[in-house]
Amino acid sequence: DAGEKGKDVPKSLHAVHAKRQEQAERSVLINCHSRINDKNFIKHLSRHGEIQKHFFYESYGIYAVVEFASQDSVASLLNEAAIPSISHDSMVPFKSRLLSLRSLSSEGLPNQQSGRQCKPQTTAPINELIQRLSREETIDQQITSLTESYQLTEENTRLRFLVCSLLKDIAAAYFPECTIKPFGSSVNGFGKLGCDLDMFLDLDGISGSGVKMPKSGLWLEYQMKRASSERAVTQSILSVIGECVEQFGPGCVGVQRILNARCPLVRFAHQPSGFQCDLTTNNRVAMKSTELLYLYGELDPRVRSLVFTVRCWARAHGVTSSIPGAWITNFSLTIMVLFFLQTRSPPLIPTLDHLRNLASPADKSVIEGNDCTFVSNFSKIQLHSNIETLEQLLYRFFEFYASFPFSRMSINIRKGKEQNKPEVAPLHIQNPFETSLNVSKNVNAAQLDRFVALCQESAWLLQQSGISTPTAHKEGDTPAPWGLATLLLPLDVAKIKSRKK
Amino acid sequence: DAGEKGKDVPKSLHAVHAKRQEQAERSVLINCHSRINDKNFIKHLSRHGEIQKHFFYESYGIYAVVEFASQDSVASLLNEAAIPSISHDSMVPFKSRLLSLRSLSSEGLPNQQSGRQCKPQTTAPINELIQRLSREETIDQQITSLTESYQLTEENTRLRFLVCSLLKDIAAAYFPECTIKPFGSSVNGFGKLGCDLDMFLDLDGISGSGVKMPKSGLWLEYQMKRASSERAVTQSILSVIGECVEQFGPGCVGVQRILNARCPLVRFAHQPSGFQCDLTTNNRVAMKSTELLYLYGELDPRVRSLVFTVRCWARAHGVTSSIPGAWITNFSLTIMVLFFLQTRSPPLIPTLDHLRNLASPADKSVIEGNDCTFVSNFSKIQLHSNIETLEQLLYRFFEFYASFPFSRMSINIRKGKEQNKPEVAPLHIQNPFETSLNVSKNVNAAQLDRFVALCQESAWLLQQSGISTPTAHKEGDTPAPWGLATLLLPLDVAKIKSRKK
Ligand SMILES: Nc1nc2c(ncn2[C@@H]2O[C@H](COP(=O)(O)OP(=O)(O)OP(=O)(O)O)[C@@H](O)[C@H]2O)c(=O)[nH]1
Ligand SMILES: Nc1nc2c(ncn2[C@@H]2O[C@H](COP(=O)(O)OP(=O)(O)OP(=O)(O)O)[C@@H](O)[C@H]2O)c(=O)[nH]1
Ligand SMILES: [Mg+2]
Ligand SMILES: [Mg+2]
Repeated sequence: DAGEKGKDVPKSLHAVHAKRQEQAERSVLINCHSRINDKNFIKHLSRHGEIQKHFFYESYGIYAVVEFASQDSVASLLNEAAIPSISHDSMVPFKSRLLSLRSLSSEGLPNQQSGRQCKPQTTAPINELIQRLSREETIDQQITSLTESYQLTEENTRLRFLVCSLLKDIAAAYFPECTIKPFGSSVNGFGKLGCDLDMFLDLDGISGSGVKMPKSGLWLEYQMKRASSERAVTQSILSVIGECVEQFGPGCVGVQRILNARCPLVRFAHQPSGFQCDLTTNNRVAMKSTELLYLYGELDPRVRSLVFTVRCWARAHGVTSSIPGAWITNFSLTIMVLFFLQTRSPPLIPTLDHLRNLASPADKSVIEGNDCTFVSNFSKIQLHSNIETLEQLLYRFFEFYASFPFSRMSINIRKGKEQNKPEVAPLHIQNPFETSLNVSKNVNAAQLDRFVALCQESAWLLQQSGISTPTAHKEGDTPAPWGLATLLLPLDVAKIKSRKK
Repeated sequence: DAGEKGKDVPKSLHAVHAKRQEQAERSVLINCHSRINDKNFIKHLSRHGEIQKHFFYESYGIYAVVEFASQDSVASLLNEAAIPSISHDSMVPFKSRLLSLRSLSSEGLPNQQSGRQCKPQTTAPINELIQRLSREETIDQQITSLTESYQLTEENTRLRFLVCSLLKDIAAAYFPECTIKPFGSSVNGFGKLGCDLDMFLDLDGISGSGVKMPKSGLWLEYQMKRASSERAVTQSILSVIGECVEQFGPGCVGVQRILNARCPLVRFAHQPSGFQCDLTTNNRVAMKSTELLYLYGELDPRVRSLVFTVRCWARAHGVTSSIPGAWITNFSLTIMVLFFLQTRSPPLIPTLDHLRNLASPADKSVIEGNDCTFVSNFSKIQLHSNIETLEQLLYRFFEFYASFPFSRMSINIRKGKEQNKPEVAPLHIQNPFETSLNVSKNVNAAQLDRFVALCQESAWLLQQSGISTPTAHKEGDTPAPWGLATLLLPLDVAKIKSRKK
């Protein structure tokens, strides 16, 4: 499978989705209670047909993702699966593609793990990362290394699509033509191992919704429950799916139905994958944002690396947080990086207005009155030959935001140029598609100040000769942090502020 | 269709269920907004295949039940049905076999109803019944007439199975092998037009629950959500289905999830049918009671007639009520009639113990430790030749309970003989299958006293020559109430009690 990622992954996000979804439909998730040996496992499953790919990982127990060559094999496997009978517990007889492998204890299965390797599904702790980075020889290498150790793996991406597919089975019970698509950092190219799984229930495929002009004077319509608004429909649907996930979904715990949010959602933890999941519906603009971010990430490898580095740096210093609040979000931060890259000279990436101008008629997209049009054919996009290194870009990113006129100006990736601020929020980042909205209206002045101070300190640090080159260290010794590693160590913001004055 | 009921309905309740369920699966329910003419309607629908049967009725609008000869026709019809598009409301895109017929207004459909007849789905008001009965010439004819106007019609029975089938589609989304069966008075032979629809979600058909001995040392099991008890599983399942009925079920209103009751249930009103529905699961004993009552009703036509008459009489005097409380229930009342019939000499119907003794090994049934065995082959049951008339039986019923030693004795259809009371409840009726339970433990002394007083008064009235024969009246005139009709008029219980003393 090595190299598969670079070779096969198609360019457009739609194509990625289609391929991944189809893969996921042919896959099952198996909890391997007993540490059974690989050969037996594969031999046992192969009775149902050819296995295209499989891997093991650990998450509250050992699991295997098994992708068959054909969906018929999955049907055959499910057809032979038993309802748990050995246990005396009561259980909800809801069947899914999440299974458990059992073995007769009398068989005495070998405990050896004949070369099985569990694929990691989370990132290493920050201390380990710092050590790893300190062993690199240039800051560019450090940034690349960080990207490589943080980005989603092939396996993790498969697992994400598989969880969507399992959830789709639940929703499809009522909406046979629906799909569930991952969006946000799971697929926009900027996801870190362990990031949450944002899912979008797409009901647009439901047939019969086109206006069918009847041939005769009579026609039949489905009688459907009316709701007071689209929002109420969304709430109804998520309420039912939330209830079902809570009561029936094996391995789904901590289900919360957050139906009164601006964007109603169902949140839960999917234990077998370890993912924190957010399910929304009727959320097409977010899907478009995801496509746009994906496009920017595909245009130049430096985009992704810089975003990963800035996200990791921000998390290390508590600029971002996993708890909602007045913090800058990863999404805002990503837009800030993109904006910075648009202001380079020459610009590393084009403006959104430019991408819209390149769009073909088929790319036209208006969602709830918002123009979300931009080019889908990547090959139409001509890039300027910006040759800055990652190290330079990182330094200039800090420098850029260390002195950005936040009090007057707004960040706008549509124009690629700061605009006058239309409102008084400390940080104003125009929502790329719902242009009247501020993506970072949650951010308060204190948080923005911290961000600016940290940018100043980081830019300053990168200029210090003491930290800008690797220190010599003996093989096997823990190397002293340098370069990017230093930027991830705790910084004393109070000290920074006093130095600033 | 005339005579179909008498001719085709098979003897055992299982066979009735199987046939009715299969019919229901081939049927759709259509809301006919415009008063379209029958021929056009049938012609339009026949494009999807042969129509076996159809009828119209009124319930918050005009509806049609249409049964196709083949299920493929239903699929074809649904495939062509549109999602409502003319309305500006938002709606939940959940598709079911409940449809609306629309017509192009420009077509100007004829408003005439070319002989269409709406089949009544409720009983006539009590005053009309009293008039109708007063026109009969004997009390026996009155009792038969009451039975005929109150019992469920062929169409109403079809509609009940169709509503079960529509609800099954909702449950089958998660439990593909489930069925939903009506029980209680909808199918036990004692249902009155307009009675509630008791439904039982049967999950026993779920495959893979048998212990499958694996051929190899390994096997796969579905991973399923565990619950602390069978009751908790029932609650989970009903919670999800209740949520779904509430949010998605077209025409389902007033959904209540009564999950902490002894027998958890989901209650709702199904507007298109006008039925008040109770959905339970895991309620096999109630299913057995239903079978038993059905059997008794099939043994001799006098059983049903007497039960209908007593139920109607009880309702007219507020002995029973649609509101839960300290009243006698219809179920208790039915058992009381059966018990009375067992004590005749010769007995009109056999005891439950006798029916158990006639059972073949295949009839054996033990549910949660309760012996629910009784014979399924009706032809094995030998009846005594009791030749009492309905009039005699009704009189003797009142006489029997007017002097029954309620304070000491318990009613027991298992033995067909009163037993010593095991507890102090005013009215003790042994539950036929859960023999340690009292079916009427809710009844208080005041209610029992009223019942006894009304029995006394009714017995006394039937002996009065003034009311025991019809009065002469002119054709077209409203006849004076007599016989059974008199028994349904308000009786002054205070007066009765004073007469008694
Ligand atoms: N318009 C708008 N979209 C947002 C906002 N926040 C999140 N989104 C969209 O929702 C997606 C998922 O949100 P998050 O899970 O918070 O962010 P993420 O990009 O997935 O990043 P993580 O922090 O790794 O989960 C984002 O990628 C955006 O497309 C917002 O404030 N405004
Ligand atoms: N064991 C037991 N079963 C009951 C009791 N009440 C009802 N049932 C069962 O549940 C069924 C439905 O209950 P109901 O809807 O109250 O009664 P019903 O026989 O349908 O009569 P209606 O009043 O016409 O609805 C009954 O036919 C019985 O089989 C009870 O107190 N004990
Ligand atoms: Mg996310
Ligand atoms: Mg009932």
